[in-house]
This record gives sequence, C-alpha cells and structure tokens, in this order.
Amino acid sequence: MSKLLDNVCMELQRLPGIGRRTALRLAMHILKMESETVDSLSESISRFRHDIRYCLSCNNLSDEALCPICSDERRDRSTVCVVEQVGDLMSIENTGQYHGMYHVLGGVISPMQGVGPSDLKIDLLCDKLLAGEIKEVIIAISTSVEGETTLFYLMSRLKAFPDVKVTTIARGIGFGDELEYVDELTITHALLNRREL
Amino acid sequence: MSKLLDNVCMELQRLPGIGRRTALRLAMHILKMESETVDSLSESISRFRHDIRYCLSCNNLSDEALCPICSDERRDRSTVCVVEQVGDLMSIENTGQYHGMYHVLGGVISPMQGVGPSDLKIDLLCDKLLAGEIKEVIIAISTSVEGETTLFYLMSRLKAFPDVKVTTIARGIGFGDELEYVDELTITHALLNRREL
Repeated sequence: MSKLLDNVCMELQRLPGIGRRTALRLAMHILKMESETVDSLSESISRFRHDIRYCLSCNNLSDEALCPICSDERRDRSTVCVVEQVGDLMSIENTGQYHGMYHVLGGVISPMQGVGPSDLKIDLLCDKLLAGEIKEVIIAISTSVEGETTLFYLMSRLKAFPDVKVTTIARGIGFGDELEYVDELTITHALLNRREL
Repeated sequence: MSKLLDNVCMELQRLPGIGRRTALRLAMHILKMESETVDSLSESISRFRHDIRYCLSCNNLSDEALCPICSDERRDRSTVCVVEQVGDLMSIENTGQYHGMYHVLGGVISPMQGVGPSDLKIDLLCDKLLAGEIKEVIIAISTSVEGETTLFYLMSRLKAFPDVKVTTIARGIGFGDELEYVDELTITHALLNRREL
C-alpha cells in the first residue's frame, strides 16, 4: 500500500468515529477534490488548532480576547446562561431565541475522569457575578449524574449571591418524541411540571 | 461564532458523511489533540493530495512510478485481478490469499454519469496482455448494472486474447449472511452454482 495513503488514513483515524474504512473513503474523496480545496481544508485544521483562543470573559471559543457574543453591545448583560461546553452554547444560539450572555464551564465535575470544580471555570463566573450587573443565571447543563453533581456544587457557590435569580431550563418531553419511548424519569418530571392550557 | 471554528467546520463538511454536527465534534476533538498531531494530520492530507501518483502499470495509488505490488518481484505475474477501484484492491489484499497482480479500472462504465470505456484503463490492460506473460484474468467487479455492462465490454475486448483464461470471482451467500435476508438474485445464483460436499 502507498505510504502517503497509509499515512493519511492513519492520521484520519485519530479523529473520533473514523475507522479504517471511513478513513479510506475520506482519502479517496480527498483525491477527487480540487487541490486548492484540499489545501484550504488542511490549512483550516492547522490554523484552528494554533490560533483559537478562549474568551476571557465567558470561556467560549474565540478569535479575539473577547468572543463575538461578549463583545456584542446589543446582548442582554443581565442574564447569563451556564453551559458545559461550546457545542451547547451553539445549540442555544441556533434557536435565535436567547439574547443574553453565556458562560462555558468547560465540562462537568467528574471524579471518575479526574475533573474537579477547580478544573471548571466556576471562579470566573463568580467573579462576573461580583460586578452586580447579572440578575439571572440560567443553568443549562445535562441531567447526567455528573451534570447533577455540577448543578449541586454550582448552587452552593451561587448562594453567595442572594440577589441573583437562578433558574434551569425546563425538562420534559421533546417535540417529536414518542411518549412510548421516553424514559420514566423524564415522564415523571413532565407530569410533575405540567402546565395549564 | 468564532471565524476559525466556522471555517474548519465548513471545510470538514466538504468530506462525505460529515454534516454540521459531526464537523463540530471533530473540531472539538482537534482542539484537544496535541498541536504536533494536528499538524501531522493536516500535512498528511495536503501531501497525500499533492504527491500521490497512479501506478503506470496497474493504475493503483502509488508513491513511485510503479506501485509496491507491481514492483514486488515475488508476486505471480501470470495472474491479473481486474477491480473497479483502489478500495477493492485493498479488500482483496487484506485477505492475504491472493498473490497475483492487479489492474485498477478506475470505475465502471456508466452512461448516466458520463463514464465511457475510454475513461477506464482498459487499453492499458490490453497492452499488458499483449506481452503474453499473463495467463489468467480474474474479473472482480461489482454486480450492479454498470458493473455488468463493464464486464460485458471487457469480455468483448478480451476475446482478442484467446490464450488468456478469463474468470470472475464466485457469487453466492456471504459468510454470516442470513438466508432470510439475502436477495432472490443472489440465492438463485447460489443455487445454480451449488457445490458437491
């Protein structure tokens, strides 16, 4: 087998979800792409890794010291939505319904994986709250065991700011979910938090 | 959203099977990789596209004028296995059971996609046959309509070499396939080509 092909397949297999066959399929596709397109692909990967920064205010990925959201004057600075990771922030942004600020923790507390509270950007959040501009903290972290642990720890830290309202996003049956296949815990929550029509 | 992230996601989405979510997941993984690893990934992609060549003898992917198989003196030069594409060659190589040579057509005849016989490396195959060293041509192309058309055309060209034995790989029920789910055509073939035990 060609060393160049072997090489590119091995390198591609370092990416998650890409096995031997997929790597080969990608390589074959790369071969058919315009050489400029391949160069811009390979450059964008390298530049992304080297030049990306974390927003000093919210820990979002950023090209500058402050991310586009933190430097956007039109956003509502009285509300902060706390998320685990950048992907979650993007999912919320994609709804186009939220106009407040964000705070990216950078993970959840997980003793199993050696992630403690000090590994997350919780102090940075508390520092921001000290300024007094924030009126509401919306916690939007997952309902896993780690997520609940993180929520519990966060709540204990947020007690230091009694004037700040703390909320979490609603749990319930997702749109398009079939009740038959939804787990019991979600149904229980959805029943307890039922709304009058 | 960060422009660097946006960029890398857009570029990754040019690859087959990679949508918005997967691109984001790959980008997040790239962020966690060692910067040297990312560089070697990006370099290998670019180098593969620029430096790869096609073997002058069999049309396999190669780093040199001749691919490792064509330049391997220990291979049986009396047998040539004709395949559609490099991936097929690799699948056969991976069995470790075939020690002859290959010939990569580079596709199948497909009028729908504008691929005619002249777009495939059929002349190159005939030129090799002229030398008289080849005793058997094994045709291992897929049984799609395009594959059958290609097979038909190939047979007509190979008539010019009456001394060369032409065979195709056996069709039948694959190991691990459940008879219940195998299509009728395959079962029909498997029945017609039944073997005595």
